[in-house]
Amino acid sequence: MASEETGADGERAATAVSGAPGRPVVGVVGAGQLARMMTPPAIELDLDLRLLAARADDSAAQVIPATMVGDERGLLDLQRFSDGLDVLTFDHEHVPTAHLHSLELAGITVRPGPHALPYATDKAVMRRGLHGAGVPVPRFAVIETPQQLPGAVEFVGGWPCVLKTARGGYDGKGVWLASSAAEASEVFQAGVPVVVEERVAFVRELAAVVARSPSGQAVAYPVVESVQRDGICVEVIAPAPGLADETAVAAQRLALDVATTVDVVGVLAVELFELADGSVLVNELAMRPHNTGHWTIDGATTSQFENHLRAVLDLPLGTPQALAPVAVMVNMLGGDLPDLHRALRHVLARDPGVRVHLYGKQVRPGRKIGHVTVIGDDLDDLRARARHAADYITGVIDE
Amino acid sequence: MASEETGADGERAATAVSGAPGRPVVGVVGAGQLARMMTPPAIELDLDLRLLAARADDSAAQVIPATMVGDERGLLDLQRFSDGLDVLTFDHEHVPTAHLHSLELAGITVRPGPHALPYATDKAVMRRGLHGAGVPVPRFAVIETPQQLPGAVEFVGGWPCVLKTARGGYDGKGVWLASSAAEASEVFQAGVPVVVEERVAFVRELAAVVARSPSGQAVAYPVVESVQRDGICVEVIAPAPGLADETAVAAQRLALDVATTVDVVGVLAVELFELADGSVLVNELAMRPHNTGHWTIDGATTSQFENHLRAVLDLPLGTPQALAPVAVMVNMLGGDLPDLHRALRHVLARDPGVRVHLYGKQVRPGRKIGHVTVIGDDLDDLRARARHAADYITGVIDE
Repeated sequence: MASEETGADGERAATAVSGAPGRPVVGVVGAGQLARMMTPPAIELDLDLRLLAARADDSAAQVIPATMVGDERGLLDLQRFSDGLDVLTFDHEHVPTAHLHSLELAGITVRPGPHALPYATDKAVMRRGLHGAGVPVPRFAVIETPQQLPGAVEFVGGWPCVLKTARGGYDGKGVWLASSAAEASEVFQAGVPVVVEERVAFVRELAAVVARSPSGQAVAYPVVESVQRDGICVEVIAPAPGLADETAVAAQRLALDVATTVDVVGVLAVELFELADGSVLVNELAMRPHNTGHWTIDGATTSQFENHLRAVLDLPLGTPQALAPVAVMVNMLGGDLPDLHRALRHVLARDPGVRVHLYGKQVRPGRKIGHVTVIGDDLDDLRARARHAADYITGVIDE
Repeated sequence: MASEETGADGERAATAVSGAPGRPVVGVVGAGQLARMMTPPAIELDLDLRLLAARADDSAAQVIPATMVGDERGLLDLQRFSDGLDVLTFDHEHVPTAHLHSLELAGITVRPGPHALPYATDKAVMRRGLHGAGVPVPRFAVIETPQQLPGAVEFVGGWPCVLKTARGGYDGKGVWLASSAAEASEVFQAGVPVVVEERVAFVRELAAVVARSPSGQAVAYPVVESVQRDGICVEVIAPAPGLADETAVAAQRLALDVATTVDVVGVLAVELFELADGSVLVNELAMRPHNTGHWTIDGATTSQFENHLRAVLDLPLGTPQALAPVAVMVNMLGGDLPDLHRALRHVLARDPGVRVHLYGKQVRPGRKIGHVTVIGDDLDDLRARARHAADYITGVIDE
């Protein structure tokens, strides 16, 4: 047992795992806010949560004692990190699939598995796989060269259309809405296949978050509306206001079908376009707790983070039931204010019911640095309160 | 910045405080389950939570990176630990008051302060102070020697009566219900003053938990019923079933009055006797998050742990509003089963709505090792579910 006494001068004590009998060991690759938000349920259920972090001051590394600093994309560090784990899971999708196959061959349990992850990391694999399985997606074509572009554009219905690099994009990066071949030239520079899609005339964006365990148990959270700005989720309303029951059920069924088809273990978020006729198309997939599920921390009996941990450990899942008729989550994106805590005081004083989540990240413009959630009955009131709190903490407003 | 890469073989990485601007620093003396349950809200609000633990594998030390292992009752370690803190607070009440006065003289902010803490650590101080302030308490006398016993017993109404050591008792220890001087002899062996009290014919035990900030803001949680067995709280029902509105309001007012009278900062739990006429008497005080408030983690918008941290930092307090009409919390006391996780799987499968909290403590008979909470509408249903979950995990039942 390692035990190291230190002062409170910035150094930390290296403490030992207490070794409670039967305590499951979960390793998370990546130390962003998603791993950080897995920490409270891990503490509550006494799970031994370990972290492979790129940097010692990453968001989750600040709060998880069992942190190994290493190369999240390097096989050697992944192997060292995996020693003693009951299951390996993820904060992000940047681990090379080949490494995960190597870990599985060495007997490590990887969830979600490398057979499923390409559906979240490669838009070409995802579009082809879902289309082949009969899941509704936008009309699309996958191409490799600019020479194939005219044919693909014609196939999806002509300009304007959407072009995406198959791999490497996130939060709006790697996606172009283009009206001509000239506007689309940049998409080929990444050197990966390009997905050309029809521009969908959607009425809004929805998301269906589900969790699925290896034994096949699954739960579906209420379908939410996701408000995007510049390709980044800025606001989530749970449940999606005015959503027709049949659309809600269809979206949940679709997400559960995708989870089964792709054999996801853990949380799967399915981002959807809602069309004018009430039908939905799949936009994107994520195989980890997702921004559209952050409201569940304060707004559901079991959060998406707890259900992700339960799922990857094959523990029975918790009810996704909402705690109030409406929840509104607003993201906080970095602005001009470097000191969030000063503003926090004002926000907590103004609204004793607002739930504030800060990720411990250095403020940089546009970076996700936290979120706020408010739950209750009155959507307009909740939205105004959540927006005010987020805007005040990030310095967008000062009163 | 300290950064130390280690394997996942039981050793931990020593990670550095990231130094987000303005992040408040809270030091907690003691590393039991109360400090452990302060961790989730500290993570959410990005508070720098540091710990002075007796042992590296204490309940909270397992989950808080910034842990210093040292002597919680030694002034030198307390001084070292206090360096750089914005406020010093407590998991337990075992720190010598003289040390806390020394720390205050050295400029450390201690909350609750050493002027208030004796009301929670010395039953003679508490009884005299509350009685002097007009707060209703059982009829009592404080004595020093067995020779004073007959007069004291006569003053409180005769045998049987209750005898308590003024200091050092907890969870039923240090308290005797005696019918004769012979039965009461042990109480004098501790060498501290003895409080002799009337045996109160109460109908049940209540608790009023409040939080109070240095600027005087205070919030009162719903008044709960606390079910005791052998002097240990085994079950809490929030709100207390069938409690008259006027009794509930009176109990909350009384707790707020006590908080002001004693000048508590942080959470104050007031344990009460409810009498047949609906009036209440103060039984005990605790100046920290309390077992009768654990239900607030899952059952209230702001938990007692979050409000304790907010109060000691003089951050505005969060609403204590309940999330459902009823919450039932049942403690788990150590039994024959050493492996709680095996039983956890069964309990989570049987009841997807139960909230289980394990404290990471080695199982010893009678030791508080966790609790479960269920919230909803139907008291009988909630109580049956919470009791079943707790009994199964501790091995009292096996189906």
